[in-house]
Amino acid sequence: MLAELRGLNEECGVFGIWGHEEAAQFSYYGLHALQHRGQEGAGIVTTSGNGLKVIKGEGLVNDVFSGNTLDTLTGHAAIGQVRYTTECGRGIENVQPLVFRSTTGSLAIAMNGNLVNARDLKESLEQQGSIFQTNSDTEVLAHLIKRSRGSLNQRDRVKSALKTLKGAFAFVILTDDSLMVAQDPNGLRPLSLGKLGDSWVVASETCAFDIIGAKHVRSVEPGELITITKDGLHSDRFQEADDRAICSMEYIYFSRPDSNIDDINIHNARKRCGIQLAKEVGNLEADVVTGVPDSSISAAIGFSEATGIPYELGLIKNRYVGRTFIEPSQALREKGVKMKLSPVHHVVSGKRVVMVDDSIVRGTTSRRIVKMLKEAGATEVHVVIASPPLVNPCYYGVDISTDSELIATGRTVDEVRDLIEADSLTFLSVEGLLQSVGRSEEMKNCGQCVACFTGEYPTEIYSDTVLPHEKDLAR
Amino acid sequence: MLAELRGLNEECGVFGIWGHEEAAQFSYYGLHALQHRGQEGAGIVTTSGNGLKVIKGEGLVNDVFSGNTLDTLTGHAAIGQVRYTTECGRGIENVQPLVFRSTTGSLAIAMNGNLVNARDLKESLEQQGSIFQTNSDTEVLAHLIKRSRGSLNQRDRVKSALKTLKGAFAFVILTDDSLMVAQDPNGLRPLSLGKLGDSWVVASETCAFDIIGAKHVRSVEPGELITITKDGLHSDRFQEADDRAICSMEYIYFSRPDSNIDDINIHNARKRCGIQLAKEVGNLEADVVTGVPDSSISAAIGFSEATGIPYELGLIKNRYVGRTFIEPSQALREKGVKMKLSPVHHVVSGKRVVMVDDSIVRGTTSRRIVKMLKEAGATEVHVVIASPPLVNPCYYGVDISTDSELIATGRTVDEVRDLIEADSLTFLSVEGLLQSVGRSEEMKNCGQCVACFTGEYPTEIYSDTVLPHEKDLAR
Amino acid sequence: MLAELRGLNEECGVFGIWGHEEAAQFSYYGLHALQHRGQEGAGIVTTSGNGLKVIKGEGLVNDVFSGNTLDTLTGHAAIGQVRYTTECGRGIENVQPLVFRSTTGSLAIAMNGNLVNARDLKESLEQQGSIFQTNSDTEVLAHLIKRSRGSLNQRDRVKSALKTLKGAFAFVILTDDSLMVAQDPNGLRPLSLGKLGDSWVVASETCAFDIIGAKHVRSVEPGELITITKDGLHSDRFQEADDRAICSMEYIYFSRPDSNIDDINIHNARKRCGIQLAKEVGNLEADVVTGVPDSSISAAIGFSEATGIPYELGLIKNRYVGRTFIEPSQALREKGVKMKLSPVHHVVSGKRVVMVDDSIVRGTTSRRIVKMLKEAGATEVHVVIASPPLVNPCYYGVDISTDSELIATGRTVDEVRDLIEADSLTFLSVEGLLQSVGRSEEMKNCGQCVACFTGEYPTEIYSDTVLPHEKDLAR
Amino acid sequence: MLAELRGLNEECGVFGIWGHEEAAQFSYYGLHALQHRGQEGAGIVTTSGNGLKVIKGEGLVNDVFSGNTLDTLTGHAAIGQVRYTTECGRGIENVQPLVFRSTTGSLAIAMNGNLVNARDLKESLEQQGSIFQTNSDTEVLAHLIKRSRGSLNQRDRVKSALKTLKGAFAFVILTDDSLMVAQDPNGLRPLSLGKLGDSWVVASETCAFDIIGAKHVRSVEPGELITITKDGLHSDRFQEADDRAICSMEYIYFSRPDSNIDDINIHNARKRCGIQLAKEVGNLEADVVTGVPDSSISAAIGFSEATGIPYELGLIKNRYVGRTFIEPSQALREKGVKMKLSPVHHVVSGKRVVMVDDSIVRGTTSRRIVKMLKEAGATEVHVVIASPPLVNPCYYGVDISTDSELIATGRTVDEVRDLIEADSLTFLSVEGLLQSVGRSEEMKNCGQCVACFTGEYPTEIYSDTVLPHEKDLAR
Repeated sequence: MLAELRGLNEECGVFGIWGHEEAAQFSYYGLHALQHRGQEGAGIVTTSGNGLKVIKGEGLVNDVFSGNTLDTLTGHAAIGQVRYTTECGRGIENVQPLVFRSTTGSLAIAMNGNLVNARDLKESLEQQGSIFQTNSDTEVLAHLIKRSRGSLNQRDRVKSALKTLKGAFAFVILTDDSLMVAQDPNGLRPLSLGKLGDSWVVASETCAFDIIGAKHVRSVEPGELITITKDGLHSDRFQEADDRAICSMEYIYFSRPDSNIDDINIHNARKRCGIQLAKEVGNLEADVVTGVPDSSISAAIGFSEATGIPYELGLIKNRYVGRTFIEPSQALREKGVKMKLSPVHHVVSGKRVVMVDDSIVRGTTSRRIVKMLKEAGATEVHVVIASPPLVNPCYYGVDISTDSELIATGRTVDEVRDLIEADSLTFLSVEGLLQSVGRSEEMKNCGQCVACFTGEYPTEIYSDTVLPHEKDLAR
Repeated sequence: MLAELRGLNEECGVFGIWGHEEAAQFSYYGLHALQHRGQEGAGIVTTSGNGLKVIKGEGLVNDVFSGNTLDTLTGHAAIGQVRYTTECGRGIENVQPLVFRSTTGSLAIAMNGNLVNARDLKESLEQQGSIFQTNSDTEVLAHLIKRSRGSLNQRDRVKSALKTLKGAFAFVILTDDSLMVAQDPNGLRPLSLGKLGDSWVVASETCAFDIIGAKHVRSVEPGELITITKDGLHSDRFQEADDRAICSMEYIYFSRPDSNIDDINIHNARKRCGIQLAKEVGNLEADVVTGVPDSSISAAIGFSEATGIPYELGLIKNRYVGRTFIEPSQALREKGVKMKLSPVHHVVSGKRVVMVDDSIVRGTTSRRIVKMLKEAGATEVHVVIASPPLVNPCYYGVDISTDSELIATGRTVDEVRDLIEADSLTFLSVEGLLQSVGRSEEMKNCGQCVACFTGEYPTEIYSDTVLPHEKDLAR
Repeated sequence: MLAELRGLNEECGVFGIWGHEEAAQFSYYGLHALQHRGQEGAGIVTTSGNGLKVIKGEGLVNDVFSGNTLDTLTGHAAIGQVRYTTECGRGIENVQPLVFRSTTGSLAIAMNGNLVNARDLKESLEQQGSIFQTNSDTEVLAHLIKRSRGSLNQRDRVKSALKTLKGAFAFVILTDDSLMVAQDPNGLRPLSLGKLGDSWVVASETCAFDIIGAKHVRSVEPGELITITKDGLHSDRFQEADDRAICSMEYIYFSRPDSNIDDINIHNARKRCGIQLAKEVGNLEADVVTGVPDSSISAAIGFSEATGIPYELGLIKNRYVGRTFIEPSQALREKGVKMKLSPVHHVVSGKRVVMVDDSIVRGTTSRRIVKMLKEAGATEVHVVIASPPLVNPCYYGVDISTDSELIATGRTVDEVRDLIEADSLTFLSVEGLLQSVGRSEEMKNCGQCVACFTGEYPTEIYSDTVLPHEKDLAR
Repeated sequence: MLAELRGLNEECGVFGIWGHEEAAQFSYYGLHALQHRGQEGAGIVTTSGNGLKVIKGEGLVNDVFSGNTLDTLTGHAAIGQVRYTTECGRGIENVQPLVFRSTTGSLAIAMNGNLVNARDLKESLEQQGSIFQTNSDTEVLAHLIKRSRGSLNQRDRVKSALKTLKGAFAFVILTDDSLMVAQDPNGLRPLSLGKLGDSWVVASETCAFDIIGAKHVRSVEPGELITITKDGLHSDRFQEADDRAICSMEYIYFSRPDSNIDDINIHNARKRCGIQLAKEVGNLEADVVTGVPDSSISAAIGFSEATGIPYELGLIKNRYVGRTFIEPSQALREKGVKMKLSPVHHVVSGKRVVMVDDSIVRGTTSRRIVKMLKEAGATEVHVVIASPPLVNPCYYGVDISTDSELIATGRTVDEVRDLIEADSLTFLSVEGLLQSVGRSEEMKNCGQCVACFTGEYPTEIYSDTVLPHEKDLAR
C-alpha cells in the first residue's frame, strides 16, 4: 500500500559510521538507502575529535545536502537520521540528530522509536530544572545522561540513563571520541551492525550497508550498548534483555525488501506470508493476482506461486508524484483524475482479480483501489491482506492512526469487506504471520511484537503514554 | 533496464485536449503520466480563442508548473509536451510546444519523432529565407505550413505541409480555433485519441487518458490528420498510409505497462515476450528469475510463469535518486558505493539467477548488474534479453547510441556474453518478438518497425539524415 | 522615483565582448552592472568559432547563472542582455539574445530599443513566408539579414537589413566569426565601445566597463555598424546619421549615476538639472531638501547646493524588498504598512520640505510620498521635478504608460499639484533640461530626444506603430 | 562602509507584538525593516494562547517566509528575530527565537546582545544538569528562568533570572499568555516600545514601527522588564539601572538613518558627526566630498555643509550583489573586476577628494577604496572617519575582529594613513563623537558606550568572557 495514502508511518531511520575519513559521504548514501523510512527531514553530524559539525534540514536527503555542504562535514565519524513527521510536527527543530553542547564535550543523538514513559520522565526532569526544545523523546536521553551521577565514566552514565527508558528505541550517539549504539531490551526497532573495511557502521536497515558496500555483522542485541572508540568496539548490557519483540510491521510493510532483520530477508518473509495466505484463503477462484505497489509485491508473488493464479501488473504506481505535486481538486478527483496509482485495464478487465495488500489501516485506500479496479473492468475483486486486522494503536514509534480510525477495530471481517466494497476479504492470521516471517518458533510470538493485532504489548503501557502523533500535537 | 544508465532514450511525449475549461489542469496530469518519456523539459500552451498562452521550463512537470502558473493558463484547449534531451541539447529554447506568432493568427506545435529529410527541408527553406531558432524538426513543419500556398484553408495548408515530411512524427498543433493531430504514414510513433466527457483528448500513451479519467477511442491512423474545432472532429488523410510500422521499442521499453497501443497492452506484450523467451532459451537450469526494474518486470514474470522457475525480487531500484543527487566519486564507486540498483543478497546468494532485461545497449550496465549479482552471491547469472540484439541506429526519434557504441554490433552473442561476464546470454529472436507483441501477423513485420534489430528501415533514409543526438550536437 | 511603483521602464541593457577567453565571465559581471535596466530575464551567448552556446532564463543575472553554468559557456566572444518585460510579456521565449540557427552558420542578436515600422516589416516578411516565435523586434532584423540579397558578404547583408529599420535600436550581434554592433541613425539608445586590454567590449552603459576594468573608447555613432573579427575592428555607415537624439530619459532616470553618455556623466547632468531647477523654482522658502531615492539624489544635491537649503535624507529606501516579497494586503496597506520607502520623521517633522523627484508618470507615487511626508510631520511639501511634464508616449523602447494614464497630459501644473496634494509643484522647463544635460547646444534639442515632453518625435511615426507594451499584449 | 567587506557586524534585530490578529504579518514587515541587522537567519513564533507556532530558517526574511507559511502562524501575539552569524556559526539550530517546551507551558526567546558572564553561568547550570543545544546566550536565560525558585509567579521568576545576567541584552519573550521585554541595566543595545492601535509592539529599531504604521512610545529602560498580558502592560525593574551606555556604534554604523534611539534620529546624529569632523579636520583643501555608501552618507552631507566643499556621488554601490553572487576569481580581481562599489570617474577625476567613512576596522576596505578613487583619477584622497579609532574588542554583541586585527590598535594615525595609502586621515575625537550624537551631556560619556574606542567598559569583564565570534568557533 502507499504510505502517503494512509496513516501508517515509520518514525525514522538512523545511521552511524566510525573510522572513515569519508564518514559524511557514506552517511549520505546510507541515509539515501533509508529514505523510505522518513522523507520529511534529514541530518548528519560529524566529528574529527574536536567538536561536532551538523547540517540538518527539511525534505529529502537530496534536498538537504549538496556537494558543497557535505564537504564541510569533515571527520572520521558521523551519525545521521531521516525523519518522518506528522502534519503538525513539521519544523526544523524536530529534525535529528539533536546536538547538545557542553563545556565538557558535546553530544549528538538520533533515535528511532518511542518511549512509553517519556511524559513521566520529562515531568520529573523538568521538576529538576531541565528544559526541552523539541517534542522528541531523544532529548530525554540527553538530559538523563547529563544528570546521571555516581560515575566518572561516560559509558556508565549512558548505561545508567538508558536503564530508565521504557519503550522502543534504537539510538545512535556521537561524541568527540566515541560512537555509541543502543537498543531497547525488547529490540522493538531494527538496528544492525556492519563493517566497511576497518570501519564500523550501524543502520536501521541492512540495505544501507549494501549501498556503501559494507558487510552485515549482526543485529544490535536487545538491551545492548555498543561503544566504539579508537580502541575498538566494546559491548555492554545496560539491562537484561526481555523477550525479543521486533516490530512485525517491519517485515510486513516498513523495511525495504532487500534488507534483512536478524538474517531474515524481508522479501522472503513477505513472500512466505503470501504463500501462507494462499493456504488460509481457502477455495478462491480467480484469474489474476496483483499486488499494490510497492510493499505488497513480494506477498503477491508468493500468493501467485502457491495458488497458481498468474501474477500480473494490475496496478502501476506513478513514480513522479513528488512533494511539490499539485493535488487534483475534489472536483477533478470526482471527474476521475487519479494520481499515484493507475489500474492496468487490459490486465484486469473481465477478470476476477486478487488484490494483495500488506495491510489495511483506515480502509479508504483499499476502497478506492477496489473501486478503481472495478471501473477498469474487473468482474470481481478479492482483497487479500498479508497481515492480520490492525485493531490497536502502536506505542513504539509507528504512527498508526488512533484505534477509532482503524477500520478493523470493532468490526467483523465481513463488515470491513462491505465497507471497502470487495467481493471477498481475507486477512492473514496472527499465527500465520508469526510462522511465515520465519523467526525462531521457540521465542514468544516468534520474537515479534504483534501488539497492533493482538493488544498484547511487550512492555508496560502507562496511563499517560503518549502516541507518536500526540507528541507533535502537543506543540 | 534503467534509462539513466545508458544511451537509450525516447524523444518525448505529447498531449492535447479540446473543449474543457480545465484544459491546462488536465494537460498537467496528462503530462505527468507521460513523464517517463522525457524528464528534462515540459511545456503547455493554451488558448481560449484569442491568442496563445505558454509556460515552458526545464525539469520535471512538477518543477515547471505550480498552482499559480497553471491558473494563468486559461482556455478551453491545450497542448503540451514532456521532453528528453541529450546532454548537449539542453537549453530552454528546445523545450516544446514551440509557438509561432503571426499577425494573422498564432500556432503552437509539439512533436514526438524525427524527420529523415529534415536537413534537406531546412536547407531548402533557408534558401527561401526561413530562419530557425531551435534544433527541432518541429520548426520545419511551421515553416512549411506558412509557405504552403494555393489554398485559403488552414487544414489544407497543414495537409500540404505534412505531405513533404519523411520519417517518424506524431504532431499536436494548437491554433486559436483548432486542435490538430497528425501521424506519419507508417505510424512509427504512438498517438492515441480519447474522450473525456464531451472533450477530445490526444496523447502519446493511453496511460495519460487513465490518469484523467478519459476513455480511449482509437489510435490516430498512419497518414491521418485530425482537426478538432467547435464544429467537431474532422478526419483527413494527408497521405496514403504506408505499411504500419509502430516502433517495437515502445512495446519493449518505452511505454508504461498500463498503456495500450492499438489495443495491445504493453504489460501483456512484454509478458508474452518473456514467455516466448522461455521457449527460445532452451534447457536452462536456474533457481530464481529476477527482472531489472522497472521495464523488465513484465517479461520476467512471463519467463517465470513459462519456465516454472520462481520469480523473485532480486534487484531493488532506489526510488529517491533524483536529478540533484550527488553521484559517488570514482573512488567511492570502487569502494563499492552503488546507487540506483541494489541486489537482494538473500534472494540471489547461492542461487543460479536468471536476470531478465529488456535490452542491451552499450553493455556497461548489464556487466555492472551481473557483477553486482555475483558479488551478492549468485553462483550463476544467466542473462535473458526480451528483445533481439540492437545493432543499428534509429532515425525515428529514439536516441540510441551510434552503432559503434552498440555492444552487439559486429559481435556474436557469445562475444557479448563474455563482455558482460554472464554465464549465458539469450536474446529474443526477431521472429519471436514480432509474434509475441501480438499485432496482426498479416501485416509486414506484424506492423512493427524493427529496423534497429534488422536494418530494414520502413522509410527511405537519406545520406544526410541526421540522428536525434546529432541535431543537438549541431548547435 | 522607484521604477517598481510606476509604469516607466527601460526595455533592456546589452553587452558584448570579443577576444577574451573569459568572455562569459566578463559578460556576467557586465550584465550585473546593467541589471538596473532590466530585472526579469538575462541571457549570454558565446562562441569559440564553431557554433553558439546559450544560457537564458527568467530573473536576475544571479538567478540565471551559477558558477557551473557559466563554465559551460566557453568561447572568446560573447553577447548578453538583461531584460525588462511588462506583466503580459513574461515568458522565457522573449528573453534575449535570440539565436537563429542555420546550416550555413548561426546568429545571435540582442537589442535595446523599439522599431516604429516593426508591424509593417513583420507583415511584409510574413507574406514572404517568415514566421515569428517571439514578440520581439529583434527577430525582424534576423529575417531581414537572412533575406538580404545581392551580396555575398555578411557585413553588407547586415547593413542592408539595418537600412530598412526605423526607430530606436542598439544591436549586438554574434556569429561564429564576428561581433557586430549597430545603432540607429538618431542614436536614440545609448551604446558605448570600450577596450579591455586587447579585447573589445560594448555595452549600453559605461558602468559595465568600470566593473570589469575596461576603458571607455567612444560611443557607437548614429547609423554606424561596427564589425569586430579576428582581423580587428571595422566601422561602416549603414545609413547617414540623422540629427542625434539620445533619449533624455537616460540622463533623467534610466542610467546609473556613474555612467557617462558621450562623455557626459549622468550624476553631473542630474546635478546640473537640480541647479537649473533652483533657478526656475523662483522664491521658494523651505527648510530641507530631500530626494526620492535612488535616481533623484543627484538632482536634489544640486538643488540644495544652489538654493542653500540643506540637503537631508528625508526618505529611506528599503534595500531588501525583492521579487519574492509578500506584498501587504490592501487592508494592511490602509493600516499604514508601507514598503520600499520610509520617511525619516525627525528630518521632516515640523519642516517645510522640498521633495525632489526625477519625473512624474501617473502621479500615484508622488501623491503617496507627499502624503507619507505630511503624515511624518512635514508642514509643507514642495515637489520639484527634475524633468518637464511627461505628456506623450514613447515609441523608442521606454515603456511609459499610454498618454491617457500620464497625469500631466491635458492638465495644468496647478491641477497636477492639486492631484498629488503638494503645496507647490515645479517642473524643469524643456529648455532648462536641454541645457543642463550639457550636450552641445549647436545640435537640435542639444542632441536629445525630448518627444515625451514635446511631442516632437525625431523619426517618422506610423499609424500602426506599436508601443512596447502593446507588443506584449499582442501575444 | 560596506558590512560585507569587513569584520564589523551586528548580532541581530528583535521584534515583538501583542494584541493583533495579524501578529505574524506585522512581524514579517517589522523584521523586514530590521533586515540590515542580520541577513543570515530569521524566525517568527506566534501564539493564540494555547501553544507556540514557529517557523525559522536560514537566509533573508524573504527566503524564510512565504505567503503560505505566514498563514500558518496564527495568533494574536508574536516575536521574531533576524540574525547575523559568523562564518562558523551558520546552522539552523542557532536561528532564533528559541523555543523551550514544557509540560507546564512553553516559552520562546529571542535576544540581541552578548552576556559577559555566559561561560560562568553555563558551567554552573551544566553542573546542575542543564544541557545546551545552541551556542547562544539566549539559552542561558531559559535555564535560569526554569530553575528560578521561591516564587509561583512567572514574572518574578523572569526577574530573578535576569538579575544574574551581566552584559548587553535586549530580550523579547513569548509565552502562551504574555509578551515580555527586557533590557540590561546599562541599556547597551537599543530596544523601543511602540503602539499600533491598541496593540503593543517592540523592536530593536524604530524603523520597524514606521513600516507597519506604529507609533513610537518610548525606549525600554535599562534594567526594565515589561510584561504585556491581556490585562495590559506592566513595568518592573529587575535591577537598578547602571549608567546608561547605549552602544555608540548604533549611531555610527548599525542603525538605519530613519531610526531614532531615545528620540535622537540616526541621520541627524551622523550629520552632526560630519559637521564636528569639519571642525576637527583643520585646514583641508579639497574639491569634492563623497561618502562611502550607505552608512556614511549622512556624515558626508554634514561635512560638506560645514566645509562648503560640494557633496557628490563619487562612489556607487551595486544594489544587485546578493548571496548567490559569483565572486570574481583572484585573477579577475587583479584584472580590475570589482563588485559592490564603483567610483564615478567624472566626479573624482582630477579632483582632490574627501572620502567620508563611518569607521575603519581592518583597513583593507579603506585601502581598496582609496586605490579605486586614485585609479579613477583622484589627485588626492583625504580620508575622514566619522568615529574615533577602533582599538578594543566589543564584549556586548558587536562582532568586531579581535584587537590584533584592528588596524588602529597600536598604530598612530599617520601609520594607519600610510597603510591605507591616503593623503591624509582624520578620525573624529571621542569627545567630538560623544557631543555630536546629541545625548544629554550630564550623563557619563553622554550615556554612550565607547569602550571599543577607549577601553572603558561599562560593565565588569571577566577573564573568561567570550567574544561573539568565539562562541561560534566553540562549536
